[in-house]
Amino acid sequence: MGGLENGATYNQNSVPSTNKTGLSPDSIINLDQGDPTLFEPYWRKMGDKCTLVIGGCDLMSYFSDIGNICWFLQPQLGDAIKGLHRAVGNAVTDGRHFVVGTGSTQLFMAAIYALSSPSASHPVSLVAAAPYYSGYKDQAEFLRSGLYKWEGDARTFDKDGPYIEVVTSPNNPDGAIREAVVNLGEGKLVYDLAYYWPQYTPITHPLDHDIMLFTFSKCTGHAGSRIGWALVKDREVARKMTEYMQISSIGVSKESQLRAAKILGVLSEGCQHFRTAASENFFEYSHRIMRERWESLQNVVKNSKIFSLPRFPQDFCNFTGKYTDSNPAFAWLHSKEDIDWESLLREHKIIGRSGEKFGADQKYVRISMFSPPEAFTLFLERLSAIIDITNGNLAGGEESSVIECS
Amino acid sequence: MGGLENGATYNQNSVPSTNKTGLSPDSIINLDQGDPTLFEPYWRKMGDKCTLVIGGCDLMSYFSDIGNICWFLQPQLGDAIKGLHRAVGNAVTDGRHFVVGTGSTQLFMAAIYALSSPSASHPVSLVAAAPYYSGYKDQAEFLRSGLYKWEGDARTFDKDGPYIEVVTSPNNPDGAIREAVVNLGEGKLVYDLAYYWPQYTPITHPLDHDIMLFTFSKCTGHAGSRIGWALVKDREVARKMTEYMQISSIGVSKESQLRAAKILGVLSEGCQHFRTAASENFFEYSHRIMRERWESLQNVVKNSKIFSLPRFPQDFCNFTGKYTDSNPAFAWLHSKEDIDWESLLREHKIIGRSGEKFGADQKYVRISMFSPPEAFTLFLERLSAIIDITNGNLAGGEESSVIECS
Repeated sequence: MGGLENGATYNQNSVPSTNKTGLSPDSIINLDQGDPTLFEPYWRKMGDKCTLVIGGCDLMSYFSDIGNICWFLQPQLGDAIKGLHRAVGNAVTDGRHFVVGTGSTQLFMAAIYALSSPSASHPVSLVAAAPYYSGYKDQAEFLRSGLYKWEGDARTFDKDGPYIEVVTSPNNPDGAIREAVVNLGEGKLVYDLAYYWPQYTPITHPLDHDIMLFTFSKCTGHAGSRIGWALVKDREVARKMTEYMQISSIGVSKESQLRAAKILGVLSEGCQHFRTAASENFFEYSHRIMRERWESLQNVVKNSKIFSLPRFPQDFCNFTGKYTDSNPAFAWLHSKEDIDWESLLREHKIIGRSGEKFGADQKYVRISMFSPPEAFTLFLERLSAIIDITNGNLAGGEESSVIECS
Repeated sequence: MGGLENGATYNQNSVPSTNKTGLSPDSIINLDQGDPTLFEPYWRKMGDKCTLVIGGCDLMSYFSDIGNICWFLQPQLGDAIKGLHRAVGNAVTDGRHFVVGTGSTQLFMAAIYALSSPSASHPVSLVAAAPYYSGYKDQAEFLRSGLYKWEGDARTFDKDGPYIEVVTSPNNPDGAIREAVVNLGEGKLVYDLAYYWPQYTPITHPLDHDIMLFTFSKCTGHAGSRIGWALVKDREVARKMTEYMQISSIGVSKESQLRAAKILGVLSEGCQHFRTAASENFFEYSHRIMRERWESLQNVVKNSKIFSLPRFPQDFCNFTGKYTDSNPAFAWLHSKEDIDWESLLREHKIIGRSGEKFGADQKYVRISMFSPPEAFTLFLERLSAIIDITNGNLAGGEESSVIECS
């Protein structure tokens, strides 16, 4: 998951991702949210291929597929999801139940509901290894549910009894490839695989976990559609996740499901002709864009004596058939000096999100790599200036450090 | 709200509302859910007027209107909602904050979240006058929230402290026009006005409450879109409702918002030329269809010695400019003998929902008036047969009773 969480503020003086022009030296650049509009030009180039036409009398019923556990899943979307995972090779779909949600955000809520037990005397513990996506805590806590309880960092978790560990891979905020860390007896796992797509990371093998969450937002950039999906092994878990969606919103918007089906279908088709096609496949395009951004950012940060970025080894990507780099959706900047990153950036009219919100400390900050091009360029300029100042403030001069994430 | 709730079962031998053909004498007729597909022929007749075309690069951002409290509300939808309420005259919109939700179901959850207090020592009590919509209890209880607590029938509620009363008007299940009943000091009210449209009830005046919920599903019949809206007086309540949507699903599907905007716009336009237009307005059409159904059902039930339907006085409808009948979305059948309605109907292959689920008793049953025409006709035939049997079983013969709802 995600780009937006509780506590994200919408500063009307800042430049939201939707406002792509009119930046001035005084503009505040909002890199707090991960709004993936940078992929828009690709879909514009596709012209009518992805255009959806919906008649006034279409899609009127609550029901989509009465014989399916997830009775509000449009069959076209189920087919498109299956086709895409096959084409990309990032997840096993055979024998899985498909559950659609209003983004993977709703599916995460559905999963923790499904894995909790109403008859239990205590709420089930919910953990994720720090640094973890800041939204999990908000989602687990905001309704004060008696079913589950946020317990923070999985690495320090040692309570007896049932627990749920969320494994985000590649991780938000730091882009690391992850496995479960708790490994106690009564644990259940939810894999949030929002970023396990070729533009962000090498696809090393098809994942095969009990509950795997994906989202249209981060796969293609269509965040406004609010479509996510879960691949679920256990029938009863899929039924309870569906029940969550039924009680909380009576299903998921069908127009968005149909549009996602269309766009994912076009994407899969492009993947099939990947190496022979005359035009660029979406994953090639988006990988190129992300790579260019990461190279620009790395070129700036390498001049710093105190700031660093995570470094990832290249790996063989089965999808592209070559060794590729990781290009996470967020940059997880670290300072080896004791500075408050978020405040420092704000002084320079850049909004990032402090490491403290991710179970880390203020020496870390998360920066969205998804901003409009103009905002990204201005960010790099301002970051260069910050680096010049901080380098100048240092007596002597030290080498840039790196955090190894594997 | 709504047609579907937790506990609704999807019997694969039954005839869902989406299956409009192939009924046989053995078919089970499912009248449990309120799936309003019966209005589909109207929208089909409208042809391309309501067709929506969405390009592949449209609506990609999370954001719709960064300057609005509800930052994910598409401005076109806000305008269309305002235009429709003005045309119909059923709700005051001036000075109100508009919050869009994934159906009014999600908005109900958002409203009780917004009206609760995280700093309170006890959860706020949530009540509704019986018979109440069965979904409220499920929604209030399923996550075991510590913020609010379902306390059942508002008529017997007498606890001290803060409470929220949901007022459903016209009421689901019985169609009654309602006002708040508790009227204690610390109460807050949520008005669920899903059925306050001209096809269901005379529009006597524009309502002007603090929180008013509406849904696209029951207004036009587009249940699959999952679009609802709230008109909210208090800015802070609107902000907290928006926060609920942000944390639980990061907004509302934009494709469905745009489609709702288009269809509501066409509907409003039709209302403006209401009495002079050559073609039938949607509300005339849907009122006619509902009236025909109610007359058919009343003609069958009047033959019973023990069964009855609520009876509503005619009232002057400002929208149509004449006295009109109420045509609720559900029939609330009562038996003055002590029978288990739901079981009796099941013996005759009809699925209704027992009064017990609405805070009443098993002598009541709720029947959807929204089924496909063929299913409705078969229902009437079977109900006639049940009435013949039950009349025959009675020694003597008594007059049919009525329940007065005003």
